[in-house]
Amino acid sequence: MSRFDTYFLMKTADVLDYARERLDLFDKNADLECKEIGDGNLNYIFRVWDKNSDKSVIIKQAGNYARISDAFKLSPDRNRIESEMLQLEYKLAPGLVPMIYKFDEVMACCSMEDLSDHVIMRRALIEHKKFPLFADHITTYMVNTLLMTTDVVMDHKEKKSLVTNYINPELCEISEDLVYTEPFNDNKKRNLVFPPNLKWVEENIYADEALRLEVAKLKFDFLTNAQALIHGDLHTGSIFIKSDSTKVIDPEFAFYGPIGYDTGNVIANLIFAWANADATISDTAERADYCGWLEKTIVEVIDMFITKWKAAWKENVTEVFAKVKGFDEWYLNSILADTAAVTGLELSRRIIGMAQVKDITTIPDQKARVRAERFCLTAAKDFIMKRSDYKYGADFLKTLKSSVEKFPRS
Amino acid sequence: MSRFDTYFLMKTADVLDYARERLDLFDKNADLECKEIGDGNLNYIFRVWDKNSDKSVIIKQAGNYARISDAFKLSPDRNRIESEMLQLEYKLAPGLVPMIYKFDEVMACCSMEDLSDHVIMRRALIEHKKFPLFADHITTYMVNTLLMTTDVVMDHKEKKSLVTNYINPELCEISEDLVYTEPFNDNKKRNLVFPPNLKWVEENIYADEALRLEVAKLKFDFLTNAQALIHGDLHTGSIFIKSDSTKVIDPEFAFYGPIGYDTGNVIANLIFAWANADATISDTAERADYCGWLEKTIVEVIDMFITKWKAAWKENVTEVFAKVKGFDEWYLNSILADTAAVTGLELSRRIIGMAQVKDITTIPDQKARVRAERFCLTAAKDFIMKRSDYKYGADFLKTLKSSVEKFPRS
Repeated sequence: MSRFDTYFLMKTADVLDYARERLDLFDKNADLECKEIGDGNLNYIFRVWDKNSDKSVIIKQAGNYARISDAFKLSPDRNRIESEMLQLEYKLAPGLVPMIYKFDEVMACCSMEDLSDHVIMRRALIEHKKFPLFADHITTYMVNTLLMTTDVVMDHKEKKSLVTNYINPELCEISEDLVYTEPFNDNKKRNLVFPPNLKWVEENIYADEALRLEVAKLKFDFLTNAQALIHGDLHTGSIFIKSDSTKVIDPEFAFYGPIGYDTGNVIANLIFAWANADATISDTAERADYCGWLEKTIVEVIDMFITKWKAAWKENVTEVFAKVKGFDEWYLNSILADTAAVTGLELSRRIIGMAQVKDITTIPDQKARVRAERFCLTAAKDFIMKRSDYKYGADFLKTLKSSVEKFPRS
Repeated sequence: MSRFDTYFLMKTADVLDYARERLDLFDKNADLECKEIGDGNLNYIFRVWDKNSDKSVIIKQAGNYARISDAFKLSPDRNRIESEMLQLEYKLAPGLVPMIYKFDEVMACCSMEDLSDHVIMRRALIEHKKFPLFADHITTYMVNTLLMTTDVVMDHKEKKSLVTNYINPELCEISEDLVYTEPFNDNKKRNLVFPPNLKWVEENIYADEALRLEVAKLKFDFLTNAQALIHGDLHTGSIFIKSDSTKVIDPEFAFYGPIGYDTGNVIANLIFAWANADATISDTAERADYCGWLEKTIVEVIDMFITKWKAAWKENVTEVFAKVKGFDEWYLNSILADTAAVTGLELSRRIIGMAQVKDITTIPDQKARVRAERFCLTAAKDFIMKRSDYKYGADFLKTLKSSVEKFPRS
């Protein structure tokens, strides 16, 4: 009997013992240290390393409650989903997710590749770092994980068994509440609107019946559309990055859902980075340069996604009715519409709802933050209401720029 | 140990022993008899009755192969799905499905209420019998089983556990092939088009690229849209009926799919009954009377469904975003469009594909059958291509009548 045969929430000392006893990774003479490094919303994350070698490991344990709030009671099953998803993604998009060493179902605990030489992308973007390979990497990741798990490519029976394996009621509920409901009606009274924008949000968002109807349609799409095995939380805080490498982490929200939910999250969070740079870089040329790189990246993410999608489609399509003339175009257009819609949803919920982003909350000047939030929300409404009009990267950028122009820098 | 502790395919003598040994239904002195009564496509069905009392039972066993053809190898899990579905439906729509006495997972065998005083509706319609309560009964069944299992009403987490329980890869594959694929391209060369219509079908169906594109979209909706727990095979051969009672049977195709798949199946099979009556009743007044009853029933099924749906929606809606202004109308309109589309798909596949209906195949006069098939297929194309135009029962009837008018009786 080992004390790791029964689930308990580990502290650093426990994690050290766990690494020695349960992982076949370190030498007998290893001099191990352990530190809790996580600041995510749902889990406890530790780094264990050997001072006598360069070996290290990340150990991630799921608790019974979300770290962010006791209001979210969660089953540790999300850790199984995350581990199995990372292993599947590693096959589909090798090198673009961390390698898994061991998943321990009893301890709801996953041991994986240490990415300490990478940084969390959101933090790096707030420091105005550029990553010229990001658009290329993330579009490969998305096309490979998304297209390859649809009914376009997969045997429909195998796909259905994946649907079952990744049914994810609790984490989907979080998205249903925080992305598709509360930002548009504050029904649980836990939105965290920046006070100077409260009246503006009430008038322009909560009171907009046409917007709420479109959001209702999108919510039911999220609830019912088992299109592809999506990451489910693909924002810049779920991406580890360095100049030559991009690693997508944290797929614990994974389930069979709409493809646009992943692609739209990427675009929205690049827009947040843009809003941060626009508000905080005082030097005009420097600002133009960095915002320019982000604009290029937004356009590239869409356009490279389209190009790679079309190529991968041709190479991998198996479903005979997906080969019918015109179907590929119809299918891709529906993904682009969903991408636009989710861009708008993510822009809204991160400003209005309870899970806010540092790109916006760290803007020190109040007027600048008010302005950033308003042009993001103005763009959001366009993305949602006119979602069928988005066909190219340039269309996405145009909405950002025209929304910004409506709020002149004071 | 009993020989019923291990699965085997039972003959009548085995079923007799099984009823004595495993069912707590008959007296010790019962004088039991058993007869195989099934002629369905997938299962073996027996009736066991006691000659000394009025007690009887239906015992339905799933084989490893479909009865219709060894080409469909099936897991007996469909029997679990059917039994659990009937129990759930009995709660949602009491009296409109048979009562289950026992489900035996080992023997893949379900013992249920004997409905020998009812008849299979398709057979009765071919004999031109009327059932004035059918529209009322079937719309109650559909609204109660369909609306109540959507995300409109159900807790979303409970709904997801039902999705998992009713994942039905093998039987869905049959529908994907026989309903959504083969009727429109004969890709497995097993269509059974009535020879005098072969060229007509090749020219008007297989060669119609616009039709095939719409079918492709509908196929992906069937593959991905987990809208409600549907029956999945709701034709008139899955309905036991008598003047004052309607019982829906055989929900082994049940899974979370589009609501319109059930409603459309009912309408299409009423149209087949109409086509049969139109072709086989020689007396003009008698024909007008019976066809008139069917026309009234088609209209009533749609309009009573709408009325009951709206009332049940108001009473049961729980999802806050389903209460947004305009959403109820949008949702119902999308169901009516799906209903029209599936009416068209079912009309097509039962004439072109391998699972044909007796309403059509028993029309003795060749010219009359050619005509019936052509107006059904002409209506089918309208139902599919113009599916968003259908709002009332009268719209469905109009398509039938205008298609019939294009083919004057010779």
